[in-house]
Amino acid sequence: MAERELIDYIRQLAAGSSVPWLQVGIGDDAAVLDVPDGGRLVVTTDMVIEGVHFEPGTPPEQVGRKAVARAVSDLAAMAARPLCTVAAVNFGAADQVTAERMSRAIWEAADELSAPLVGGDVASGAGPGRAGCPVMAAVTALGLPGSSGVVLRSGAVPGDAVCVTGALGGSSLGRHLTFTPRIAEALALAERVELHAMIDLSDGLSTDALHVAEASGAGVSLRAGAVPVSRDAVALAERSGREPLWHALNDGEDYELLFCLSPAQAGELARAGVEGVPVSVIGEVIEDKQSWMVMADGRREPLTARGWEHLK
Amino acid sequence: MAERELIDYIRQLAAGSSVPWLQVGIGDDAAVLDVPDGGRLVVTTDMVIEGVHFEPGTPPEQVGRKAVARAVSDLAAMAARPLCTVAAVNFGAADQVTAERMSRAIWEAADELSAPLVGGDVASGAGPGRAGCPVMAAVTALGLPGSSGVVLRSGAVPGDAVCVTGALGGSSLGRHLTFTPRIAEALALAERVELHAMIDLSDGLSTDALHVAEASGAGVSLRAGAVPVSRDAVALAERSGREPLWHALNDGEDYELLFCLSPAQAGELARAGVEGVPVSVIGEVIEDKQSWMVMADGRREPLTARGWEHLK
Repeated sequence: MAERELIDYIRQLAAGSSVPWLQVGIGDDAAVLDVPDGGRLVVTTDMVIEGVHFEPGTPPEQVGRKAVARAVSDLAAMAARPLCTVAAVNFGAADQVTAERMSRAIWEAADELSAPLVGGDVASGAGPGRAGCPVMAAVTALGLPGSSGVVLRSGAVPGDAVCVTGALGGSSLGRHLTFTPRIAEALALAERVELHAMIDLSDGLSTDALHVAEASGAGVSLRAGAVPVSRDAVALAERSGREPLWHALNDGEDYELLFCLSPAQAGELARAGVEGVPVSVIGEVIEDKQSWMVMADGRREPLTARGWEHLK
Repeated sequence: MAERELIDYIRQLAAGSSVPWLQVGIGDDAAVLDVPDGGRLVVTTDMVIEGVHFEPGTPPEQVGRKAVARAVSDLAAMAARPLCTVAAVNFGAADQVTAERMSRAIWEAADELSAPLVGGDVASGAGPGRAGCPVMAAVTALGLPGSSGVVLRSGAVPGDAVCVTGALGGSSLGRHLTFTPRIAEALALAERVELHAMIDLSDGLSTDALHVAEASGAGVSLRAGAVPVSRDAVALAERSGREPLWHALNDGEDYELLFCLSPAQAGELARAGVEGVPVSVIGEVIEDKQSWMVMADGRREPLTARGWEHLK
């Protein structure tokens, strides 16, 4: 099964529908609903699967935390404040102690990330047998818009600067299990500047920048020399034989924020950072729907989605 | 891993916590939240797993529908109106066409059950390999309280009549895949009578009646002769060599409603039914915390949770 094709199929199903209170449905980092007789709500669901999002043998504390942090990161991408989470977990072949350790980790991470766990469902194994059944946790996170409302993928306009928080690449060396979703940074950004579009970097900078470009009906032109390359990307490059930049562009699971806004405000952020986290201006939004990467020597190459695709 | 022990462990984690806007946390069919600056919201998450909730080879249309219907049935148990759903699905070893058929079924069932799908996450396989990975769908359903508010498991009082909708047992013959959650019936009941407690029968009458008794700090005394036994329970008994009543008591996956209310109002419902569905008065709530089953010959036996437990 090809994940990308299936998502396209589901988007087609969704395209024909209209639900009056649904502001944003399938296709962004989270859904946005105007609850009848209630407020505006942000909802997202996300899975972690043994063998895809973590290796067998990963400490259950890290697995549980990652399951919650991934879902909450989708709230950050919308500039939403976490409200609560629910979790459905299949513990596969895990023993009682491992299942308890993972449950506690989910509970504690939800608490730490201000998204207390309010419900859940648990099971163990099945399929042809427990032995073949991966551990799997599906976490749904609910959030509320920050004081400036939600930020979508689709609002970028030509001339906008493209920015990212932090440094990218090599998260498979460990950071993908230990990151803290950029909720505080997203809320601070939304208060301080006028964000036109935002996404969290889960699939990789190249893929996620193209998600924003596509949703906004525009392109992006990124400057290779401006992409903040993490020390992990450098370390991984030594093993992989690739360039560190390649890892920063394509590894994914950075869970940093990519956002688009006026060049003036972007310049300010690049000087000051946000909540102690550096901000880099890595390119601009262009009218041309073809997206580009401008290399250090001035050459420009088409930007293609080579980001980390699950199960490939 | 023992599911029941793990749930006890998670309840202990939850017992120490207090979230000011959380009206009902872990332990009922769904969570109830008073969203800050918003309305009251009902949230529940539920899984279906190949080999537990459906056999390998089950048409993907039925699997998708069941995944949604199970979650929505938990809203019915609270007398809540469905608002929307999100779904996280691991398609295991399924091919593209099967994954699309199941996705469409989820989409259509959500629509049919007035809980439109607003978001999701998809993956395929992993663990030791795709071959051993069961198909798994985790659906989170959001709902709003009906006009009379939500109904919990915990409000039953001694003297209440215990009622159920429909007829019980033998759902494994097919009904577990095709049932319609009792949303309309639950909302009509909540409008027409004063419900003290309610649950949907997913684990089996014996187990779920004890859930209500325990949550309410009381016991129940059920009359064997009053339990509505379905034709499926009779058919299954012919194969299993058990009594049809045994199946009605313990099979589970009926997705009917069990509720407690004054005997006078229960009597009225038993005569009139609700939304065309029969209502049976099957016993009463008692002060004694030991629950009982009164047999046809007047003997009474302790009621024990022999309901369908997943993976046992």
